[in-house]
Amino acid sequence: MNYCSHCGAPVSVKIPEGDERPRHVCERCDTIHYQNPKIVAGVLPTWKDQILFCRRAIEPRKGLWTLPAGFMENNETVAEAACRETYEEAHARLAGVELYTVISLPHISQVYMLYRGELDDGSYSPGIESLETRLFDIDTIPWGELAFKTIEKTLQCFVEDRKSGTFPVHNLTITPAKK
Amino acid sequence: MNYCSHCGAPVSVKIPEGDERPRHVCERCDTIHYQNPKIVAGVLPTWKDQILFCRRAIEPRKGLWTLPAGFMENNETVAEAACRETYEEAHARLAGVELYTVISLPHISQVYMLYRGELDDGSYSPGIESLETRLFDIDTIPWGELAFKTIEKTLQCFVEDRKSGTFPVHNLTITPAKK
Repeated sequence: MNYCSHCGAPVSVKIPEGDERPRHVCERCDTIHYQNPKIVAGVLPTWKDQILFCRRAIEPRKGLWTLPAGFMENNETVAEAACRETYEEAHARLAGVELYTVISLPHISQVYMLYRGELDDGSYSPGIESLETRLFDIDTIPWGELAFKTIEKTLQCFVEDRKSGTFPVHNLTITPAKK
Repeated sequence: MNYCSHCGAPVSVKIPEGDERPRHVCERCDTIHYQNPKIVAGVLPTWKDQILFCRRAIEPRKGLWTLPAGFMENNETVAEAACRETYEEAHARLAGVELYTVISLPHISQVYMLYRGELDDGSYSPGIESLETRLFDIDTIPWGELAFKTIEKTLQCFVEDRKSGTFPVHNLTITPAKK
């Protein structure tokens, strides 16, 4: 951020009075430009004993498998965002969704919120951001070709919870692997 | 938003190619300025059979009772944000926290994420944004003087769940009351 989005003057970085963190501040119109984490909403879509995956048509991680998910927009609920992404990326509608994993990624200021949901009628096809959409059995999940750690973690929870048949919400944190 | 925060040129509102929503777009440097919902993180702090409340020293809803909560910052986890807010507003530390309510407010593009947590040693005192901090028994919760619907809803869940002793995560939506 270089300029004030309100008045157009150059911004400076300083700690505002009464605050404890450096912010982008406009010295002309006094606007403080806060920056906050973004929510990525998505779904682990199931159909009977299978899971629906999308193969990414776009960077990052083009060609790898993921679950439908994307940035939540203003003026929607988290569940609406998750269902919208599922339709956009896999042309699939869900009979209903239940919150499943909430994963903080503090190093990139994102919070993933992934739901579980059964497909409405079993139909699906690739959206513009997917090369391919495919149902996988639990024991053929493409573990070595997953696009994101958040997706891998959510699938690990699902495989484990399936044994007991109870699916509590998991609140987790992922940080970069130590080098 | 009037100006591009990257290059300082005036922005226009239009639907970028391949998108479906109007965005603030800079026609000089081609930056698309996305706007996304914000997370409000907080805690329902307990101490034995009581709940710790804060009376707000600032607008909105100055003078009314709330639970410690505030905007999540970049580079922290949701739980860290919730604990930080509890320390800032009530000078209270928590022995541990469990995610409890996730509440979408689509009309103001916010998502509340409130935890349950037992105070570490029972000590607390008002932070700069609180006029007063006080432990209330369940049957003296100041229902008529609560600052926010999200807080009221979370307390309703808590009072109800306390009967069974099980506290699942509740994923809810609050929309404005119809006039």
